[in-house]
Amino acid sequence: MTFTTTKLLCWVLIRVVATKEGLDLLDKAVHRMPVHYKQHIDGCLSDTIGEHGLSEVELAPMVDAAEKATSDLGNGVIQGAAEILALPTQRDDLAHLDAIAEEMRSRFETLIVLGTGGSSLGGRAITALRPDNAMKLQFVDNLDPATMSGLLDGTDFSRTGFLVVSKSGATSETMAQYLVSFAATQATLGGDASSHFVVITDPFDSPLRHLASVRGHTILDHDPGVGGRFSVLSNVGMLPAAIGGLNTNEVRSGAADVLEQALGSSAAETCPSALGAAICLGLARHRDARMSVLMPYADTLEPFAAWYCQLWAESLGKGGKGTTPVRALGPVDQHSQLQLYLDGPKDKIFTIVETAISGEGHEISDFEEAPASIEYLLGNSIGDLVAAQQLATRNTLIEHKCPTRFFSVPRIEESSMGALFMHFMLETMIAARMLGVDAFNQPAVEDGKARMRTYLENR
Amino acid sequence: MTFTTTKLLCWVLIRVVATKEGLDLLDKAVHRMPVHYKQHIDGCLSDTIGEHGLSEVELAPMVDAAEKATSDLGNGVIQGAAEILALPTQRDDLAHLDAIAEEMRSRFETLIVLGTGGSSLGGRAITALRPDNAMKLQFVDNLDPATMSGLLDGTDFSRTGFLVVSKSGATSETMAQYLVSFAATQATLGGDASSHFVVITDPFDSPLRHLASVRGHTILDHDPGVGGRFSVLSNVGMLPAAIGGLNTNEVRSGAADVLEQALGSSAAETCPSALGAAICLGLARHRDARMSVLMPYADTLEPFAAWYCQLWAESLGKGGKGTTPVRALGPVDQHSQLQLYLDGPKDKIFTIVETAISGEGHEISDFEEAPASIEYLLGNSIGDLVAAQQLATRNTLIEHKCPTRFFSVPRIEESSMGALFMHFMLETMIAARMLGVDAFNQPAVEDGKARMRTYLENR
Repeated sequence: MTFTTTKLLCWVLIRVVATKEGLDLLDKAVHRMPVHYKQHIDGCLSDTIGEHGLSEVELAPMVDAAEKATSDLGNGVIQGAAEILALPTQRDDLAHLDAIAEEMRSRFETLIVLGTGGSSLGGRAITALRPDNAMKLQFVDNLDPATMSGLLDGTDFSRTGFLVVSKSGATSETMAQYLVSFAATQATLGGDASSHFVVITDPFDSPLRHLASVRGHTILDHDPGVGGRFSVLSNVGMLPAAIGGLNTNEVRSGAADVLEQALGSSAAETCPSALGAAICLGLARHRDARMSVLMPYADTLEPFAAWYCQLWAESLGKGGKGTTPVRALGPVDQHSQLQLYLDGPKDKIFTIVETAISGEGHEISDFEEAPASIEYLLGNSIGDLVAAQQLATRNTLIEHKCPTRFFSVPRIEESSMGALFMHFMLETMIAARMLGVDAFNQPAVEDGKARMRTYLENR
Repeated sequence: MTFTTTKLLCWVLIRVVATKEGLDLLDKAVHRMPVHYKQHIDGCLSDTIGEHGLSEVELAPMVDAAEKATSDLGNGVIQGAAEILALPTQRDDLAHLDAIAEEMRSRFETLIVLGTGGSSLGGRAITALRPDNAMKLQFVDNLDPATMSGLLDGTDFSRTGFLVVSKSGATSETMAQYLVSFAATQATLGGDASSHFVVITDPFDSPLRHLASVRGHTILDHDPGVGGRFSVLSNVGMLPAAIGGLNTNEVRSGAADVLEQALGSSAAETCPSALGAAICLGLARHRDARMSVLMPYADTLEPFAAWYCQLWAESLGKGGKGTTPVRALGPVDQHSQLQLYLDGPKDKIFTIVETAISGEGHEISDFEEAPASIEYLLGNSIGDLVAAQQLATRNTLIEHKCPTRFFSVPRIEESSMGALFMHFMLETMIAARMLGVDAFNQPAVEDGKARMRTYLENR
């Protein structure tokens, strides 16, 4: 038992003495590092929400298991984790990525990123932060004939670059996207087309690698030890980030802070990811929480929620295990999903991501013809409204006894995004270890791929 | 019992004799109407997927109940349904909507639609079909200070119109969006600002109605008997559709075909919606299918899946009842969620929406340096690939014994979209009746709204 009785007592005491003060104390104890975010789990515990929450007796062994899994992560016992955990402290590759980004920005108006699933979601999530004046980025992650035709018909190829991302170098959607995009570019630009393409792929023989080499595209190695859904901190996420004018060093620093704190002691007090995994799996085991709803209150975090869904689903959904991630977005999904969340079956855990958004954006001014019934809006900024809404939703969920944790993110910026990426990657890896599944493979989808290929070959 | 033994026997016989021929026969019997779509439920039955599917003994009483509910819909027993079911055959309002649309297209380059939840999702879903040369439409359904600022900073107000949709005329997000948008427009255009706004709201006193009246905006009545999530066939969906250059008459005709067939006999053979509701609730009751995954294989149907999620969640999620809708998109989510779907817990029903997409889009040409490993792609169009993928995914799900139904939609166009809207609205109303919940209210969210208002007033 790494989670000793003393530690459990201490942790429970801090929380129980007085809820708010207890949490503040715990926060102070936990956050010696720069505070990129805080996780609050009180709304998942039976002390707060009664029978739908976890009791300390139920939580303690889950925390033990999570601490053991975290310790295994730090000790290199978990096959496939080391390469991912090496990324946050890596710096020597960033200058090269910045140089490529600088060149692309100078040559092109638009960058089209071709890639599907893990080759796209991380890049999408981090580049949602890019400033308005950044280079135009377009991620094409689905395969749809009308979308591809619309894209290529509307492209000024002379001012457009392509970034093609496929770890295996054989993903059929990405190969199809690439083949028609290159053919269209070449039809317009001839021999110059090749220099418009940058490729990220494994350093092994593959159709994409072969073609990129024959055609003379710039090639970057995909880290062969890092699977797509864990690749956001590698060049797969950092090159789009750099092209979008973001500080990639800060992204990795934020992730490194979280990682260092987590693995420094492997204890739940200093590893919010371990506590998060313990809560999620504890609620799944003891309270039938089949779904994990991630609901951020910021448009810039919408792609982050999609990234999380792949990470959690594909890493854990094996051998009948796993829970289903559901992405939501506040406040809009208050008008779409909240009725079900509050009053439907109690089969979910909710993770609300709140930001310090008060005072941001346009102010709703008072004006002459204002009816009394909207007085409550006047003098507030759009950010004030959103701040009130995220607080109201969190508290309403808790009031309805729905297991709810929330993250406070003071500021959505490169370092806090890096921290959030790392939090959820750690949480997922810890959860996989606790469930006894391999976080890094996806065996079931291979069956569908083989079937698709057979259908095409037998047309 | 409306579902007699003879009918059950007949239905089972048709299906059992020989699966494919049986289904074709059934299809022929069922579809005297124009065939906008076909629903195939075989992959949800124990004959096909064994113990994870429904047996005939389990399904029959669910079908009975669904037929009874359908009959109640037709007989006007269900409070709140009549106004919704009157929409498909309504025509007298369309010329007026077309005239407003024509005027907006002539005056503006861009239309910004302000509204959240049901005021936005239907319009988004239908206008996803608009041709490339249609007027630019931008739906602002979330509230985010950065997004609103970016929007207003980048707007040429002289060439921009606004459509403001709020049934109650008091929704705080929409009121906030409207107030800052009008203030910004007025700051630029002065007295001309008023004519840039069209408002759809209930014909009762409300802050939005009051302001629209005082300021002289064009006002259209929101049908007071039709709630937001059922409003797509009303002016809430049809005005954006008309502005996007779509044939609203065709949308309603497609819906009318489905409705007429469904209510003509109230029998499951002629009401795919009743059969769908029976399958969904049967799997929820007997096989713990907590989630209903809608996965279309077309980018244009992505907003449709979001529309479905609100419809199903908010209509059924009451008193501990309901199941959770999950939206997915093919093929991209094959690389994100499919591993979990195939090999995770068996707690879902999958609805795949397939389109006749073969041959569409760019062809992947053969070329000199093509490696042998991509030969299977060459000579195929992007549409051929997607066709193979939707077929592969459906069959892989069934092979993995996941309850799976699929819709074949020959062509995504106005009439088939109308048909799909009607199918799922009927399915939802039938399911609500079977569960004994009111499909048309959303009592739990009022609590959160009151809390938010209190927070703002006490700032």
